[in-house]
Amino acid sequence: MVDWLDILSPALKARDRRYPVYARIKDRIRESILNGQLRDRERLPADRELATILELDRSTVARAYAELAAEGLVESSVGRGTFVTRTESSMDSVPRTDRADLAGTSQLRRQDRTPTSTSPIIWHEKFSRFSESVSGFIGKQPLAGPGARQCISFAAGVPSLEFFPQADFESIFADFSRSPECRRMFAYTSAEGEESLRAEILNHLRNQGMSVDEDELIVLSGSQQGIDLVARTFLDPGDSVAIEDPSYFWATCNFTAFGARMLPVPVSETGINLDFLEAALSRRRVKILYIMPSFQNPTGSTMPAEQRKELLSIAARYQVAVFEDNFVGDLSYDGSALPPLRSHPGSRDLVIHQSTLSKSLCPGLRIGWMVAPAEAMKRLLQSKRVSDLSTNSISQVIVAEYLRRGLYKEHLTGLRTAYAQRRDIMCAALESSFSSGELRWSKPAGGMFIWAALPSDCSARELLPYAETEGVLFSPGDLFFVGADRREFLRLSFVQSNEAEIEEGIHRLAIAVRTYLTSKRKRIPGEPSRRIGSPSVFV
Amino acid sequence: MVDWLDILSPALKARDRRYPVYARIKDRIRESILNGQLRDRERLPADRELATILELDRSTVARAYAELAAEGLVESSVGRGTFVTRTESSMDSVPRTDRADLAGTSQLRRQDRTPTSTSPIIWHEKFSRFSESVSGFIGKQPLAGPGARQCISFAAGVPSLEFFPQADFESIFADFSRSPECRRMFAYTSAEGEESLRAEILNHLRNQGMSVDEDELIVLSGSQQGIDLVARTFLDPGDSVAIEDPSYFWATCNFTAFGARMLPVPVSETGINLDFLEAALSRRRVKILYIMPSFQNPTGSTMPAEQRKELLSIAARYQVAVFEDNFVGDLSYDGSALPPLRSHPGSRDLVIHQSTLSKSLCPGLRIGWMVAPAEAMKRLLQSKRVSDLSTNSISQVIVAEYLRRGLYKEHLTGLRTAYAQRRDIMCAALESSFSSGELRWSKPAGGMFIWAALPSDCSARELLPYAETEGVLFSPGDLFFVGADRREFLRLSFVQSNEAEIEEGIHRLAIAVRTYLTSKRKRIPGEPSRRIGSPSVFV
Repeated sequence: MVDWLDILSPALKARDRRYPVYARIKDRIRESILNGQLRDRERLPADRELATILELDRSTVARAYAELAAEGLVESSVGRGTFVTRTESSMDSVPRTDRADLAGTSQLRRQDRTPTSTSPIIWHEKFSRFSESVSGFIGKQPLAGPGARQCISFAAGVPSLEFFPQADFESIFADFSRSPECRRMFAYTSAEGEESLRAEILNHLRNQGMSVDEDELIVLSGSQQGIDLVARTFLDPGDSVAIEDPSYFWATCNFTAFGARMLPVPVSETGINLDFLEAALSRRRVKILYIMPSFQNPTGSTMPAEQRKELLSIAARYQVAVFEDNFVGDLSYDGSALPPLRSHPGSRDLVIHQSTLSKSLCPGLRIGWMVAPAEAMKRLLQSKRVSDLSTNSISQVIVAEYLRRGLYKEHLTGLRTAYAQRRDIMCAALESSFSSGELRWSKPAGGMFIWAALPSDCSARELLPYAETEGVLFSPGDLFFVGADRREFLRLSFVQSNEAEIEEGIHRLAIAVRTYLTSKRKRIPGEPSRRIGSPSVFV
Repeated sequence: MVDWLDILSPALKARDRRYPVYARIKDRIRESILNGQLRDRERLPADRELATILELDRSTVARAYAELAAEGLVESSVGRGTFVTRTESSMDSVPRTDRADLAGTSQLRRQDRTPTSTSPIIWHEKFSRFSESVSGFIGKQPLAGPGARQCISFAAGVPSLEFFPQADFESIFADFSRSPECRRMFAYTSAEGEESLRAEILNHLRNQGMSVDEDELIVLSGSQQGIDLVARTFLDPGDSVAIEDPSYFWATCNFTAFGARMLPVPVSETGINLDFLEAALSRRRVKILYIMPSFQNPTGSTMPAEQRKELLSIAARYQVAVFEDNFVGDLSYDGSALPPLRSHPGSRDLVIHQSTLSKSLCPGLRIGWMVAPAEAMKRLLQSKRVSDLSTNSISQVIVAEYLRRGLYKEHLTGLRTAYAQRRDIMCAALESSFSSGELRWSKPAGGMFIWAALPSDCSARELLPYAETEGVLFSPGDLFFVGADRREFLRLSFVQSNEAEIEEGIHRLAIAVRTYLTSKRKRIPGEPSRRIGSPSVFV
């Protein structure tokens, strides 16, 4: 029997007119649902009954119930009462996550929510810690200083800047600065993007077999903005988004920030599990499927051509919009890349496609693009305008000229060769340093990542301090999972370090894994071996 | 007597499982409330009664009512029933505006809502048309071609690029490209912003008397992003935002897109009306006050020092967060600018302050910054990460060096002189071209805009075609109003055109105004003179 007075009275103690009573009741019940204190199908007291218990007006309780119902957390049924409806996975039913109360000083200071295991706050903190650590990793450049043993990082999903064509950029910048066209670099561009860049992108897309009209294209301030635009334009709280599990963590973060309920679908070496997807779609209405068909983040997996066709046919059958993130589409190492989903016949009105130069050229430009059906694009453009009016013009004008001169194609040829070599060296080093009882992995056909697994009772988080001691870093795989609680995976980026560093880094990783496994096997049985300790490297 | 079958049956005709019945009822009732078909305090039928009329399950109707109640559009009262609660101004109670349904092809195509006069769709279209026209205006560069009489535009809120220091930028870019620091221009920066730029901004803020800690500062991709971050981080649907009326239209657009209820507060030559503000705050809880105390857009007004103190004291009393947009703070022409609100003692935890280089240097950089209390900044940073990860690095690094070399200060000195001269020339031209019965205006102490008024029964929209015929453009003032229905105002930007163009443009405007007034006075009495025709120049 639930003690409602016990659950709700703390919330009612401090009367504060800026935090109305109905909202406190609502927030406290929501919290109790999310932290499991209230079980699924638990019956809430009738509003009249709860009002009597709490000595409140009935309408106050009714308003709290109405808002919980609107959030999909409870459900009223005539004659039977109000019930908790928390039936989905742990990410479901999470309300909008990035709203905070703000009403001058005191309220900002008084903010003091107790995070619970499934609460959005924890979710954000997980990402926040990770992003801080990633920033830290990126900052660590290999040094040749005496004595200091520099950490080798396979953690961050960023390209190597040593291949960046800085001379080309400098020369383009100088040419433009001296021409009357200079002004284009410094004025606003339209929300759709700078004209010359749009023309070059359309050309680039045509080369990938994509037929795109002008009113279907927008230039993005990086592809994170594309995710944001889709989320804010099309998602209402409670809408479902299907997502590969594991997937790009900032995407999950963004969709849930707009109140979406995540439907995680397992992904294997051949991409998303279509049987699982179809079964899920037949049971639940899903608005958007977010997917990386080529060189997926973090698994590196690629969907074969047959699966791509099948995916589109499922999406058409269930009328789910497919949001294709082709973030490393240009980085294929074993022959040419498979055509993106948007290149397939019949995909025009079904697929929102996006890509970026952040991985194949450099991230500091903040240049990406999105293709969407014209009707959807009208709305995306409005969201773009309220987001940042337009993308920075310097990058747009320089990149347009870089593409126009054919320099990007040349750059890609060299980059693919260099990255393929790094991938092969990392695979060879993994092959020679590990037994299959220690670490398993698969070789990706492109992109930036190798996805590796410790034995299934191990935790990459537990491995991290050992790795740090040896001077090597990676991204623990649990960060990327949306639904599954899997802790044995590591994501290794092979593009950021040179050949010698890769060999040395994998060598260090092997020592760390062996020390970790030995220490783990020695533990007294009974100690909870899968329990995650304080992730010191992330704090 | 309301015919409910008549109102609701069209919504129920086409059964479509992707658009559930409760949602259709909800949407149709919302529409009827917003377009005035249902009046304030109108009683809705009991859910049981309406269910019988429509031959639906009662729970379907109850869900529609619950969601309308959660949106604040209806209110249930025990024993009395459910009532429309649309009591606020026309922008109130507007639900989130930029969400759209998206579920593959067919749903995208089927989108077919009928916009009503107060619906968010119209609101968006108003802005959309305006933004298109602004893009058009910006594109029109004065030409010296033979015969062609080039249109002179006072419409757009963009700086003149003829003063842009392109040689300085080129030299900085070249210096960096050749140095090992080059990489900083092309890598990701942190969400907080590039280190050297942050240091320079802190220095710039100190010079304005602002004491800012490092964890209170973020670099923005332009100040539109600052508005977006505040809205998405702190606003929940139904929250109230107080705003100057008239104000920056993309701010209104953004706040309402996140479901805020706008509380318009009149603004005069000495800034926002504090009596009105206080009276409003005493009646209604307001989360954020968005304000431009210096050289306001569109009115050009500036709050005197005393009013600034008083405003802060009101905000503290009612615990309202003050969001100060100092977008043209550096552009003061009559002596030094008044200290921003954030420079006042006691403002640290009360004020979110932002500024930008888009008006004083150039908009294509997309560089702005925001200062907020550290606790709020943590949340703003999370929103920044999901929005675009980080601001483009090229602009950040170049601008940092530009500030470090002291070039921005020099640039401002020259720019202020040039713009002040243009302001004076426009004022002199207005003075000599118009009688006070034709056009009234006031001289701003800084910024970019002169706010002018036709006689009160006139409409700047009606004037537009006459102006276009004469070859001059301006922004019709009704675009900036949030609550008030005022149509006699024009916003004239004096920074975009040179002295000769300003004189010629005002001369043309005077001809247009006279022709318009003559034509208007001739009309048969009885014709509704204030009715707005099709705004042809905006389509």
